[in-house]
Amino acid sequence: MTESLDLHLEFDPGAGSPGRSLENALRESIRTGRLRAGSRLPGSRSLATDLGLARGTVVRAYAQLVAEGWLVSAPGSGTQVAEVRHDLPGSRRRPRPSAALEPVIELRPGVPDLGSFPRTAWAASVRRAMATASRGTLDYPEPTGLPALRAALADYLARTRGVRCDPDSVVVTAGFTQGLSLLARALHRRGVRAVAAENPGLAPHRMVLRAAGMTVTPLTVGAGGADPDEAAGQAALLTPAHQHPTGVVLAPRHRYRFIAWARERDAFLIEDDYDGEFRYDQRPVGAMQALAPERVVYAGSTSKSLAPGVRLGWFVVPEPLRRDVAEVILQAGAAVSAIDQLVLADLLAHGDYDRHIRRMRLIYRRRRAELADRLAEVTSTPLQGIAAGMHALLPLTSVAEERRLIQAGRGRGLHLVGLHSSGYCHDPADERQPAALILGYAAPPSHAWKSALTELSQLVQQNRR
Amino acid sequence: MTESLDLHLEFDPGAGSPGRSLENALRESIRTGRLRAGSRLPGSRSLATDLGLARGTVVRAYAQLVAEGWLVSAPGSGTQVAEVRHDLPGSRRRPRPSAALEPVIELRPGVPDLGSFPRTAWAASVRRAMATASRGTLDYPEPTGLPALRAALADYLARTRGVRCDPDSVVVTAGFTQGLSLLARALHRRGVRAVAAENPGLAPHRMVLRAAGMTVTPLTVGAGGADPDEAAGQAALLTPAHQHPTGVVLAPRHRYRFIAWARERDAFLIEDDYDGEFRYDQRPVGAMQALAPERVVYAGSTSKSLAPGVRLGWFVVPEPLRRDVAEVILQAGAAVSAIDQLVLADLLAHGDYDRHIRRMRLIYRRRRAELADRLAEVTSTPLQGIAAGMHALLPLTSVAEERRLIQAGRGRGLHLVGLHSSGYCHDPADERQPAALILGYAAPPSHAWKSALTELSQLVQQNRR
Repeated sequence: MTESLDLHLEFDPGAGSPGRSLENALRESIRTGRLRAGSRLPGSRSLATDLGLARGTVVRAYAQLVAEGWLVSAPGSGTQVAEVRHDLPGSRRRPRPSAALEPVIELRPGVPDLGSFPRTAWAASVRRAMATASRGTLDYPEPTGLPALRAALADYLARTRGVRCDPDSVVVTAGFTQGLSLLARALHRRGVRAVAAENPGLAPHRMVLRAAGMTVTPLTVGAGGADPDEAAGQAALLTPAHQHPTGVVLAPRHRYRFIAWARERDAFLIEDDYDGEFRYDQRPVGAMQALAPERVVYAGSTSKSLAPGVRLGWFVVPEPLRRDVAEVILQAGAAVSAIDQLVLADLLAHGDYDRHIRRMRLIYRRRRAELADRLAEVTSTPLQGIAAGMHALLPLTSVAEERRLIQAGRGRGLHLVGLHSSGYCHDPADERQPAALILGYAAPPSHAWKSALTELSQLVQQNRR
Repeated sequence: MTESLDLHLEFDPGAGSPGRSLENALRESIRTGRLRAGSRLPGSRSLATDLGLARGTVVRAYAQLVAEGWLVSAPGSGTQVAEVRHDLPGSRRRPRPSAALEPVIELRPGVPDLGSFPRTAWAASVRRAMATASRGTLDYPEPTGLPALRAALADYLARTRGVRCDPDSVVVTAGFTQGLSLLARALHRRGVRAVAAENPGLAPHRMVLRAAGMTVTPLTVGAGGADPDEAAGQAALLTPAHQHPTGVVLAPRHRYRFIAWARERDAFLIEDDYDGEFRYDQRPVGAMQALAPERVVYAGSTSKSLAPGVRLGWFVVPEPLRRDVAEVILQAGAAVSAIDQLVLADLLAHGDYDRHIRRMRLIYRRRRAELADRLAEVTSTPLQGIAAGMHALLPLTSVAEERRLIQAGRGRGLHLVGLHSSGYCHDPADERQPAALILGYAAPPSHAWKSALTELSQLVQQNRR
């Protein structure tokens, strides 16, 4: 199951023909060792169902890879991963005898530097929490979160992001995605059936909304962010401070129009402030929530500030939605570990959280500047998006170029993400969206950062001139 | 919101007339300080909607409590909690000038001794995990759990409960309830629309199943456990090793008939092994899952073995359900904290988990024996239920007696739970179910255990002779 799930996650239906994409995804998984020799692949029928492809497409892809020697197929034992040569055709230009053993350099957006996670501070907070927590804290946690953490978050969000909230309005979740799922179900209980979401925007968020029974309609993102004229349904999911992935800020006039729309329609705005702590050129734009606390659900998490593995998030919920959100949490058994909550409250109270963010802000700011400088040496196209967060866009001239660069990047051990190649567009076939690489500069470990820059600039140089 | 939610949780629709129950719940909340002086109560309309009562019932209950001086009502400011005398009418026989300041002694079932949580071992595991975890472990966790924990759990469950599983079959969840919610949604995707559940059984589990779109039908629990002849729908939720709350074991003939039913109907059995580690008179009955791993979803959690605040659980899932479960987890953003997973894996690997359970088993066994001995001094009715887990039943002659004892217990600072008074019966009006107190002997802190025994035995003595 793990294997077929991996396939699912890696498979990228936007990139060229489905069969080719599937072949590429399988080759990549085998090359990088995610699929090990001897691993059995799912049956073509179940994989086809899982990916929404015709079975014949999967059968042909398997056959192609068997022909290429990546897979072996034997009657009765299905299709397995072969003992393969670990060099891609694309990498033959530069011989890499042990390419498979080299770590792939991730330039994924939306992932912080995991190597900088404050492990010592976390362990110290756990020790303090274990020394001081009351007995009752270890009982079934309150569905919306421990009062101590809700108070600490209310203070933190007001102080750093200008959020207008009190502890009662804060709901602790196991990260943004879980919170979005719970919120969507709470909205569904109130009759909401359609949510507008930014286009381009994160595919997993659209999936979560749909799974909660919502229709998702697109909000075209322009230079001023999502277009309020396209707002439809009874809710809109926005990334106002730093649009994901384009990196623009929601223009003030758009903010006001979204709020006016929400007030007129009795609708709610969901403000996904996923990396609002990280702005490098000026003070961050304050949370949109402060303009209309009764209409905006503000949301953030530790996934960018600490690490995605922590699974902690917070939603600031307008009063009319709170009862539904609390009941949905009870019905989903979705209360969050009391110990984790105590630890985050302690990190906030002791200043460790702020300290870590200040430290990472310096690192990411420097990385972003280095990225911009290196790419300026090889292309006249400037990076796009405000100096914020953990990613920047390198605009490209065509979807074909985007795909070519991603493919060529694989040969250099670079995991690149493209606007068209990673599910950001509501309609994968929509080529009106500008092509771009979405360069996540926080993800590479520090020891790999220099080679990431070198490989990337060489890649851009070779492919663009 | 918190306040009205508390009301909701404490309100007990099975105990007498709804109005009386609401009054009692409010009095209790005020007496114990859960509702503080000056707290504003929800409007009668919203509380009535929330509790499913007629508004007039709430209005009358408020009026009664205003008349009694528990509440104050003023035009324009709604109903608030008064500065009250902290003695209940029922407690006047034994003057307790500071009753409100004394802690209530919880005799709730299903809660371990929170004071024995292995805080030092937990903090040490966090330190080890932080020292050794790979960088990638802090990335978005795999939806079904970290391989290291799944492997540790597969080993542990096979060793201690005879579960037939491998790491691929283990899904890590944020406790049993969240896992049940995810599993129910996975079953729903496969067309399951009805689940049979034990009667009596836990009301929150029925709520979770219904929220996932299921109809819940009752399985009458007799001396041999749930009745397989009543199995209906395409799934059944069972507590085979120690039925909750009656404390009986599912008889072998019933196990086989449930399995035969599941095979015939292409149905699944959900084995809630909530306290399977705790058996005091003999080796625990092995998991039913071992008889039919392809039909039984085995589930357990740390809520009884460590503490409910930990929010970690595990589901051993038959192969055909795994893909749906994994997708439901992705769609709900329900992956579990990687750090917590590492810690549990470490506790299992270092033997701390086993050590803690052995230690608690001795404590709970002694408490159970002491409880039985003390009650034997004052009643000829023996405790019911096998010597296992964290609760035993004291059978009563009538529902009226059950209610009288619970009410009288409040006057002694005892929080008692009754079979009819806490939502266990599918139909709250069904008086065919035998009456009983469900005595959770693990919950009181050790310093309160002796007084819990004294208060309880006096209560039983005074009310039964």
